[in-house]
Amino acid sequence: MDKLKTNWFTESCDMWPGGTFSFEVKEVLHTEKSKYQNIQVFDTTSLGKVLVLDGIIQCTQKDEFSYQEMISFLPLCCHKNPENVLIVGGGDGGVAREVAKHPQVKHIVLVEIDDRVIELSKRYLPFMAVGFDSPKLTLHVGDGFEFMKNHRQEFDVIITDSSDPVGPAVNLFQKNYFSLMKSALKPDGIVCSQAGTIWNDIELVTNTLNFCKNQFPAAAYCYTSVPTYPSGQIGFVIGSLTKDIKFNEPQLTFTRDEEEAMNLRYYNSEVHRAAFALPTFVKYKLA
Amino acid sequence: MDKLKTNWFTESCDMWPGGTFSFEVKEVLHTEKSKYQNIQVFDTTSLGKVLVLDGIIQCTQKDEFSYQEMISFLPLCCHKNPENVLIVGGGDGGVAREVAKHPQVKHIVLVEIDDRVIELSKRYLPFMAVGFDSPKLTLHVGDGFEFMKNHRQEFDVIITDSSDPVGPAVNLFQKNYFSLMKSALKPDGIVCSQAGTIWNDIELVTNTLNFCKNQFPAAAYCYTSVPTYPSGQIGFVIGSLTKDIKFNEPQLTFTRDEEEAMNLRYYNSEVHRAAFALPTFVKYKLA
Repeated sequence: MDKLKTNWFTESCDMWPGGTFSFEVKEVLHTEKSKYQNIQVFDTTSLGKVLVLDGIIQCTQKDEFSYQEMISFLPLCCHKNPENVLIVGGGDGGVAREVAKHPQVKHIVLVEIDDRVIELSKRYLPFMAVGFDSPKLTLHVGDGFEFMKNHRQEFDVIITDSSDPVGPAVNLFQKNYFSLMKSALKPDGIVCSQAGTIWNDIELVTNTLNFCKNQFPAAAYCYTSVPTYPSGQIGFVIGSLTKDIKFNEPQLTFTRDEEEAMNLRYYNSEVHRAAFALPTFVKYKLA
Repeated sequence: MDKLKTNWFTESCDMWPGGTFSFEVKEVLHTEKSKYQNIQVFDTTSLGKVLVLDGIIQCTQKDEFSYQEMISFLPLCCHKNPENVLIVGGGDGGVAREVAKHPQVKHIVLVEIDDRVIELSKRYLPFMAVGFDSPKLTLHVGDGFEFMKNHRQEFDVIITDSSDPVGPAVNLFQKNYFSLMKSALKPDGIVCSQAGTIWNDIELVTNTLNFCKNQFPAAAYCYTSVPTYPSGQIGFVIGSLTKDIKFNEPQLTFTRDEEEAMNLRYYNSEVHRAAFALPTFVKYKLA
């Protein structure tokens, strides 16, 4: 708790030196060191409830819907029939909440390494942990890396909802991770992984995209706005086993009524198409 | 300088309470109180040179290109032949730098109220102040509001590059400002104004867009990513006197060679189209 001065929490990280974001804390709801990481849960004056792992903001009640909807619906809507979905990480339940909404999804397996994140999310972050209530969901507590070694050609879509590549998530940004995901996918499968931002982590973006390109005949980088993440956005690498896929053209679009019924607050088909439009300073670098 | 504790500068503002961004200062290059506002110029460890007005970050060397290119090229490329351009504000020179690049632009008038911003930009921020060197440019030091009262049907495009609606810029977010711009425009003219963000200032966005809609037969909100602005993005309201204009379809597109020759680092035609794709939580509210 050394970062908690007076009633403000300051996030800082070697990954983005020289700049920090701070928020005002109303109440420290929980703090503990689990087997894998430091976990903090705050109630705040402007962001609602906030989950912090190893000093880094994972999600805030104010803007988590952008991240959860986009990391879920971008790959799901790139797939023609995403019946079986694997979520690696996502212990807060937010991605499960979104994936369960998709009308074609039948079965979801979620593999989270740290059961304390799951328990604390159920206690303090019910707006995300509601994802664990889906009858579509099977929950495994364990290492996603190890899990996939025993599951071949099972999934249509694999979503990696990890923290940054420090601590327990470091394996999920490695070269062989994409090879492992490939073997767990059905023939027309799609993967989507958190992959850093073009403003702060261009090397991370480039490396992750290249690992993906080495295993998948089609791969692209896309991003969404999340104000409380460093640089105000977060990116994803998407890979597909279908060579001629057009990532920026969703296979399934929703009416306004359907969007409302699913409580989609960020994702829509126009936002899907726009997510792949890259600024010139990275467009050719990542092509 | 009360905000400068040790060697970090913290930006905070009543417009976005409960959250702050801080950056590490290498050197305080300048600080003064002009007739209109407090002006600070910093050299920093991670953002290059930074201009701060009344405690709010206006531009950093790291990401100013996104703002300057987008507030300039979005309206310019919505217009069929933007020969005459008025810039209100923009005393750092960055918008002038971008507008001058556009091949169809012949004459630029820039009206900045605070000549100290111009002088300090020339001294400390030459990468933006280079905009003042354009032979296309005529510089007026004065009130943009008053300036327009004496100029009728003169401009194809009017860009309002203002600070936030506190201090000297407050008039530029009012209802009659859009009426005044309308009268200064040629019949097929276009306006583009800084207009806050959907995450922090939805009321400001809505009001500004409504003021624009009240005067212009076509109006829309669009946005770009600027990591060092609150919430990591900034929005613009665009209005056109041409009713059936399609804002998200640029009239002029550039080849890769042209983009490089103009040193466009953010703007391209795909980014132009994507800038108008609004997340669902604001899409229908702003429609």
